[in-house]
Amino acid sequence: MTNSKNLRRLLESKSILKVGGAFDAMSAKLVEIHGFDAVWAGSFAISAIHAVPDASILTMTEFFDAASKMAQTCEIPVIADCDTGYGGPSNVSHMVKKYENAGIASICIEDKTFPKQNSLLENGQNELISEKEFVAKIIAANEARQDKNFMIIARVEALISGAGMDEALKRATAYEKAGADAILIHSKKKTPDEIFEFADLWKSSTPIVVVPTTYDSVKNDELISHKIRIVIHANQTLRAAHASISKVLKQMINADSLNEIKEEISSMNDIFKLQEMYDIKSKEKQIEEKLRKLGYVQ
Amino acid sequence: MTNSKNLRRLLESKSILKVGGAFDAMSAKLVEIHGFDAVWAGSFAISAIHAVPDASILTMTEFFDAASKMAQTCEIPVIADCDTGYGGPSNVSHMVKKYENAGIASICIEDKTFPKQNSLLENGQNELISEKEFVAKIIAANEARQDKNFMIIARVEALISGAGMDEALKRATAYEKAGADAILIHSKKKTPDEIFEFADLWKSSTPIVVVPTTYDSVKNDELISHKIRIVIHANQTLRAAHASISKVLKQMINADSLNEIKEEISSMNDIFKLQEMYDIKSKEKQIEEKLRKLGYVQ
Amino acid sequence: MTNSKNLRRLLESKSILKVGGAFDAMSAKLVEIHGFDAVWAGSFAISAIHAVPDASILTMTEFFDAASKMAQTCEIPVIADCDTGYGGPSNVSHMVKKYENAGIASICIEDKTFPKQNSLLENGQNELISEKEFVAKIIAANEARQDKNFMIIARVEALISGAGMDEALKRATAYEKAGADAILIHSKKKTPDEIFEFADLWKSSTPIVVVPTTYDSVKNDELISHKIRIVIHANQTLRAAHASISKVLKQMINADSLNEIKEEISSMNDIFKLQEMYDIKSKEKQIEEKLRKLGYVQ
Amino acid sequence: MTNSKNLRRLLESKSILKVGGAFDAMSAKLVEIHGFDAVWAGSFAISAIHAVPDASILTMTEFFDAASKMAQTCEIPVIADCDTGYGGPSNVSHMVKKYENAGIASICIEDKTFPKQNSLLENGQNELISEKEFVAKIIAANEARQDKNFMIIARVEALISGAGMDEALKRATAYEKAGADAILIHSKKKTPDEIFEFADLWKSSTPIVVVPTTYDSVKNDELISHKIRIVIHANQTLRAAHASISKVLKQMINADSLNEIKEEISSMNDIFKLQEMYDIKSKEKQIEEKLRKLGYVQ
Repeated sequence: MTNSKNLRRLLESKSILKVGGAFDAMSAKLVEIHGFDAVWAGSFAISAIHAVPDASILTMTEFFDAASKMAQTCEIPVIADCDTGYGGPSNVSHMVKKYENAGIASICIEDKTFPKQNSLLENGQNELISEKEFVAKIIAANEARQDKNFMIIARVEALISGAGMDEALKRATAYEKAGADAILIHSKKKTPDEIFEFADLWKSSTPIVVVPTTYDSVKNDELISHKIRIVIHANQTLRAAHASISKVLKQMINADSLNEIKEEISSMNDIFKLQEMYDIKSKEKQIEEKLRKLGYVQ
Repeated sequence: MTNSKNLRRLLESKSILKVGGAFDAMSAKLVEIHGFDAVWAGSFAISAIHAVPDASILTMTEFFDAASKMAQTCEIPVIADCDTGYGGPSNVSHMVKKYENAGIASICIEDKTFPKQNSLLENGQNELISEKEFVAKIIAANEARQDKNFMIIARVEALISGAGMDEALKRATAYEKAGADAILIHSKKKTPDEIFEFADLWKSSTPIVVVPTTYDSVKNDELISHKIRIVIHANQTLRAAHASISKVLKQMINADSLNEIKEEISSMNDIFKLQEMYDIKSKEKQIEEKLRKLGYVQ
Repeated sequence: MTNSKNLRRLLESKSILKVGGAFDAMSAKLVEIHGFDAVWAGSFAISAIHAVPDASILTMTEFFDAASKMAQTCEIPVIADCDTGYGGPSNVSHMVKKYENAGIASICIEDKTFPKQNSLLENGQNELISEKEFVAKIIAANEARQDKNFMIIARVEALISGAGMDEALKRATAYEKAGADAILIHSKKKTPDEIFEFADLWKSSTPIVVVPTTYDSVKNDELISHKIRIVIHANQTLRAAHASISKVLKQMINADSLNEIKEEISSMNDIFKLQEMYDIKSKEKQIEEKLRKLGYVQ
Repeated sequence: MTNSKNLRRLLESKSILKVGGAFDAMSAKLVEIHGFDAVWAGSFAISAIHAVPDASILTMTEFFDAASKMAQTCEIPVIADCDTGYGGPSNVSHMVKKYENAGIASICIEDKTFPKQNSLLENGQNELISEKEFVAKIIAANEARQDKNFMIIARVEALISGAGMDEALKRATAYEKAGADAILIHSKKKTPDEIFEFADLWKSSTPIVVVPTTYDSVKNDELISHKIRIVIHANQTLRAAHASISKVLKQMINADSLNEIKEEISSMNDIFKLQEMYDIKSKEKQIEEKLRKLGYVQ
């Protein structure tokens, strides 16, 4: 079963999918190990580990590279955050082929102008492109995919940009009609009210996706009862890594010896396991066994 | 002042340099922010975030890419762990040019066979190449560098491989004679005894470098009193990240809402600062100001 | 049909396959356009366009990148020259997964020591690894592939290294037994005599592959009559490009105007066609048509 | 002397600089060998060898990678064609740092909308961004460079887009005032008339750059007499390579043996020389000599 088919199945069989944010192959593997349904290869987190602003500074090549390594490492599906699609319809068309070929299950594109700025940045630029222009990108994505299971998520930024609920619904409807397989409705409010209003006014069966970074008190049951089908925990892994790396460095620079460190760190063995270091040793044995059968080893 | 010159100066002016391990630009930046003297771009940690074994599976291209991004991000010097040098003397020669051009301050190569395995792996392969072969690599590194400040660290694996103290000293002496600027003596013992023995028998002024991953109770004062000049805290940042990502994921998959999470995570704002997100906003203002002067803005 | 399946079918249906050497996506596309059965992504030519020696200076990452772009561009199968496999069995194992995932149809590995030097270089180093070590790499390649159609070509360097015909046959037999799907027997002689001798002594049905760079007078019929199944024209495209670029530059530096140039150059239009520049225009029209249907365009 | 300083010196000392187009390290090296003053890393040619349209399909990462390899290979300066700057002022700012760090001597950006299409494509899209927007990019480039010698070339597309001579002059003046070090005035006419008109109306000492792809009958003396300071032969090397690769493939697919090929191809030795294959052998000897002195070789 392909990764995109797998994502479709999960969506059919579960009331809500939990998607965990990752920024490299290790964090993606940990998302899988801890039982999430899918990995979110988010551009905010990937920009952050490159220490550059989340403002279209990294190129598609670098975001693709990150998402592609996650797809190679994980068995659960990877959903790639593709910002504005890195250009116009032609760029989206090439992008979809590239991502689909790499075994990525889904891409998400948003209706802001290029270059974009992070949606949660205070006083950030959140201008929308016209509905027509974004519909053209969705059409291009649709034409470019080879497997209809490859999922195209359209991210509506109307609430973020201040264009209002009617515009959000109008655009979501237009994007669905143009071929989007799911609608990500984004909000930077502290409460889920506008998300719930949107969801309640949404009459279609096309799944709704949310990213409750700012309205983090929302409960799973509430999301499910408002028929939200996918929830993305986009950046908590990155923020946990940032916090713990900072703490361990602070302790190390002040400590007399490493064993004074209070911050919990994994053992070398934990890392070896994640890397499948021992897999190399077991494969070496298998080869040794075959060499024996072929008479090269006594 | 170049990064390599900077590293030389630090070595002259301080009793011991503290070097913090990093695996991407963000962790390198955090090493800098917390006051370390230099960054260690370690192949174990870089392999780990790619979720592949530390066994020469990643190529020089990928290790270089990681170290190069750290050098672009940091003002403190970056020391690149270059494993066995990725081949013979010709490979080392091309490697040194590439790393020096990228503003990396120093490279470290070790005297094991290629492909190598992590030195701390139980039952790992730790075969040494001949002294002559490794001396040839040091000569090649020396000839290739353009700036004599670019520092070549020779890592002696004789204690790791079980070849013994005499062999370790013999090789360290040979490597120094061939042009190594510092000797990294590695050990997987639980105590610093063999490291201290080596250091006490070492009569040259060529600096000794250590990585106390296993003998983590050793104190800074002890290192200094044994005339060890550089200490690398190679993998604690990675292990802290691994631990905290794991914990936050475990909490998120079980939580009813994100605000129930107990694991400390940095704020979005902390990350925006590290990415210099606000720098973009201030540069936008500068440009606006210039545009005003040129008459484009009222 | 996958690319590797396609290669197997071609091998079944034709008396001999003609494979053309390429070094970037454009040359690969031209190999396809001119009717060759497959593309050879050769490490000599790929090294040459990077202006570095063919001596394991480029890493697997760079060779993979080149072969992978060819596979994305072409519909005919791509055979990737993987030198010595870039390390030991573990490296070969990771390599095979990477290449197979990228849609490359086949890999070829040779039994020389790493780092290698080009086989045709005068006084070049052509030391062989032991039969056992190379058999271990073939076993690793075999275990790693997911589709049995992915073709593993073992390149025997015994004739190049001076180890002789008996050793060549002994090794070819061992490699076949270990799982090689084809044997590339390489020679730097001016005549095909030793190749023919090898082929005549080879009693198995496992296909023989040759690269007649030095014995370039050999005729197709002769190859077929000696039951050679695949012939690779590895580097003539590169050498043609080198010659014509040199000539046009020499003419341009001396000319009064560009239209004095005698060297034949393709038109801008020829290049636009190869790039599928017009495909963008026609896709733009398709999207325009869809936008019209959706009511966005009058 | 840095590469950018070198470019400035050449501009001071010569009546006109001849710049040769390249698309990989080999073609760049050949541009140098044949006596050109600088290398043009052109996006049309680089797109072509990737077999993708010249329409912002490749990302900055890929164009940078190509230009960066040229700068590593050549001693003459490399001028990088950076299309529209790959985004807004923030992108230009990051871009300039990256290119300058890599030893590239100069970048050229043009005033078209992103994504762009090749200027010579029939019916291609050639919309201009506003003067203000482009001035903002030039300001950003200026602020970002560390060495004032790093040259910023502003490419005026007003004649290509049909905006006319007055607009071209108005924009060129504005770009110069904003900090451009040279003005590339582009034209797709069959004669140099409009270029000469522009040059004659241009009263500033800021150098004019031209690319006579379509008006290829223009003579060097004419360019010099119209005070044009830099002429770029952008794509003839690519078109020569395309033509000769096509011819040799056509001949090979039809030939009975390789030695029947009529197309002139360089010898293996010519390629070995360009790759500095023999340099490896001579370095091996140097190292052997040092090993002898150190007593490792008898």
